[in-house]
Amino acid sequence: MPDAPPNARSRLLGAAIESFAAKGFHGTTTRDIASTAGMSPAAVYVHHKSKEELLYLISKEGHERTLRLVDEGIASSPGPVAQLRTVMRAFAAHHARGHTGARIVNYELAALNADHLAEITEYRRAIEQRMRDLVTAGVAAGVFTTSNPRMTALALLSLGIDVARWYRDEGDWTPEDIADHYCELALRMVGATQ
Amino acid sequence: MPDAPPNARSRLLGAAIESFAAKGFHGTTTRDIASTAGMSPAAVYVHHKSKEELLYLISKEGHERTLRLVDEGIASSPGPVAQLRTVMRAFAAHHARGHTGARIVNYELAALNADHLAEITEYRRAIEQRMRDLVTAGVAAGVFTTSNPRMTALALLSLGIDVARWYRDEGDWTPEDIADHYCELALRMVGATQ
Repeated sequence: MPDAPPNARSRLLGAAIESFAAKGFHGTTTRDIASTAGMSPAAVYVHHKSKEELLYLISKEGHERTLRLVDEGIASSPGPVAQLRTVMRAFAAHHARGHTGARIVNYELAALNADHLAEITEYRRAIEQRMRDLVTAGVAAGVFTTSNPRMTALALLSLGIDVARWYRDEGDWTPEDIADHYCELALRMVGATQ
Repeated sequence: MPDAPPNARSRLLGAAIESFAAKGFHGTTTRDIASTAGMSPAAVYVHHKSKEELLYLISKEGHERTLRLVDEGIASSPGPVAQLRTVMRAFAAHHARGHTGARIVNYELAALNADHLAEITEYRRAIEQRMRDLVTAGVAAGVFTTSNPRMTALALLSLGIDVARWYRDEGDWTPEDIADHYCELALRMVGATQ
């Protein structure tokens, strides 16, 4: 909507993330989101058609960012070993740093409507395909060995995604500590020679 | 409750798992659970004090089973390499096979009341401690090498738990396929020699 003040829309997105994280998508009302944003329930509908649309926007932004960091990691590094190192580092750190949003993005997919789910599924397929291509390229180059590149690629993403579930801001490890160690684990999982 | 027919209680637990999986804990009403179980809402309260108590019972049973399979895997295998192989195999297969319940157990912890959360947290600490002890024992025996046994132990559990998020009954892999490959990945993650 061209006449919507941008800060109201982003305030609503932030309030939606906070509310969904606290009570789940289904347990959150539009009224909860409005009140967290300090706005009237009617104001929510001025900016967004529905609670589901807010979830879709959160999910789209999260997936766009993740796909971008995977693509940037691959483009910026020479060869599969360096690429996996860069991608896994960025992916793990992102899921630690943005754990609240990442939980919603990964655990509330079933609440998206059919069209939105189809769109988000395309992002997820693209991310999985990038990781699978990376593992396959490493095997072809003779620097990775794995009996199942497809399951290994899924496991690498899975390991990173689950950081969002267990990470706590008040814990002992920074996102960078996790990125460093996960990078080592990832190279081991693909049997990297070096 | 001694006079409760056991099949009514277990039918309610099954209905609660199904309802929480479909709509999340906060989005599920006692009426939803009753209707899924084919019972009246009043009947739910005859057997269980609250929706939260159902979540607690599901969570307790899930954690008890997981702790048992970890303990059995360790007790039945000679030495850290065989132990990790057995534990990871059972842990991954369990999270594939029981993915619906495992999602609730792992993603709805924040909905437990304080006493129940404290009790479930003890189970989770025990499971983490078993895995940490196993990794540490392997390092001490010279058969594992890792720069961070604690984070590696957490990553091993994390990889298994996340299977519940992505696993689909209609997918290409059986729980046993996943168990086999995850066992290989786990041995690599700890730098097992052999």
